[in-house]
Amino acid sequence: MTATVGQGTFRDNRAATVVADVMQRIRDVILEHKLTYEEYSAAKQFVIDLGVAGEWPLFADVFFEQTVEQVDSESREGSPGAIEGPYFIEGAPRLELPYVMPMRDDEPGDVLYFSGRVTSPNGEPIANAQVELWHSDNLGTYSNIPYNDDRELPPAFNLRGRFSTDEEGRYEVRTIIPVPYEIPTSGPTGALLTTVGWHAFRPAHLHIITSAPGHTPLTSQLYFDEDPYIDSDVAGAVKPGLILKLDKHDSPEELQSKNLDTPYFTTSYEFRLPRS
Amino acid sequence: MTATVGQGTFRDNRAATVVADVMQRIRDVILEHKLTYEEYSAAKQFVIDLGVAGEWPLFADVFFEQTVEQVDSESREGSPGAIEGPYFIEGAPRLELPYVMPMRDDEPGDVLYFSGRVTSPNGEPIANAQVELWHSDNLGTYSNIPYNDDRELPPAFNLRGRFSTDEEGRYEVRTIIPVPYEIPTSGPTGALLTTVGWHAFRPAHLHIITSAPGHTPLTSQLYFDEDPYIDSDVAGAVKPGLILKLDKHDSPEELQSKNLDTPYFTTSYEFRLPRS
Repeated sequence: MTATVGQGTFRDNRAATVVADVMQRIRDVILEHKLTYEEYSAAKQFVIDLGVAGEWPLFADVFFEQTVEQVDSESREGSPGAIEGPYFIEGAPRLELPYVMPMRDDEPGDVLYFSGRVTSPNGEPIANAQVELWHSDNLGTYSNIPYNDDRELPPAFNLRGRFSTDEEGRYEVRTIIPVPYEIPTSGPTGALLTTVGWHAFRPAHLHIITSAPGHTPLTSQLYFDEDPYIDSDVAGAVKPGLILKLDKHDSPEELQSKNLDTPYFTTSYEFRLPRS
Repeated sequence: MTATVGQGTFRDNRAATVVADVMQRIRDVILEHKLTYEEYSAAKQFVIDLGVAGEWPLFADVFFEQTVEQVDSESREGSPGAIEGPYFIEGAPRLELPYVMPMRDDEPGDVLYFSGRVTSPNGEPIANAQVELWHSDNLGTYSNIPYNDDRELPPAFNLRGRFSTDEEGRYEVRTIIPVPYEIPTSGPTGALLTTVGWHAFRPAHLHIITSAPGHTPLTSQLYFDEDPYIDSDVAGAVKPGLILKLDKHDSPEELQSKNLDTPYFTTSYEFRLPRS
């Protein structure tokens, strides 16, 4: 079957339909806003600059991955998912019990005990499920990422780790609380944000991929309810079901039980994996 | 003034409005066609590949410049305009009377005498207006362009020239008739066309920029009425008012008058420049 639209005759396949549709909508923007040649040239230079700066993955993941993830989440059962973002890397270390994330001896930030369960969609616990956790440090920096600025880079695989649930599907890991951070602002993506007047912050978040045999891996992000950017994430990726409440612990008995001399926090989350 | 949309709060400026609108329409495509993560990854790879191949100007000019030009044309008087395309270059030679385009001694192709007038919007002739003409050769190749394939390149400034109208606003130049050609197909733009099943041809065309004091320069393209691609230009840039009829001349008297031994063609066009 063939159809005639836009640039002529083409096969009626999905690629053609989607490509013709996105092209037509961009043309509609040009027509409706009466874009000038000067603005067209600026837009052309912007997409060229994104490539030169190596920022296409950043730009796409910040501005469009959330919508792709929304489509994906709506098509399946289980907990809501979230965007993976551009900072996942393979090869994070497998942790030994009791689970403590790889970190520097003097890693800055409040101590967090993050715990919970991994279950099937019906709530049945999954023993030996794998939980992979990665997040930024207390300055908003990820390990193993070649940032284009002069920040200090953490050691390899800092705050990246994999661990498993126990026989009752439970997990607990000690880490530190990440902070809100700006996506890289020194390149064209940051320049665009400045031009349009949007801030560059993501609220603080934990990244988690949970997986188990017989289930589809779940990519998730968890946020914290008092975060100043919880309602204005530059990536638009916050969902109500992904916001955690932090409980603060500062009694002498609690601190002694954890062998700590500063307050620590706890929070928990149950991951319900879709069946595969 | 500020407004809240999409990614949060931003200044109510034109850049923010247009950027938010184009982002929302791309998100609508993702939602309505239920794009998968696999398709999203393919799209991300495509925009990265366009940059690596240096094809952003080609891609943008083929698929979007026509719409920008349409907005521009609708805002002014005079002849319809056309896209400049990616192959204009500065510095074409100024021709001496009688005007003959720079070409090889054995330049292949039918001889064309292209003539006409340059006038104001009310039809008043403009003496000494400048006409800049550039077009492909008989193999569809432009001079001074670094193609990414193994074609033979014409000499510098082949089929590129500038000349002037006479006291009655008239011009006549001898050149050859260009041919339909495929836009470069060896890179990601060509791969996309293959995927969606569109051909890569532009109908044969002359490029002209006409200019004169007191008037806004007019960027134009002229096509030929029996061209097989006149209704399916890959760049969608053909307009009814830009299609020429070719008159063939092959009588012995005519050939002798031009000192030619093969048939030649004539056609004419009147450029009405908008007032500046």
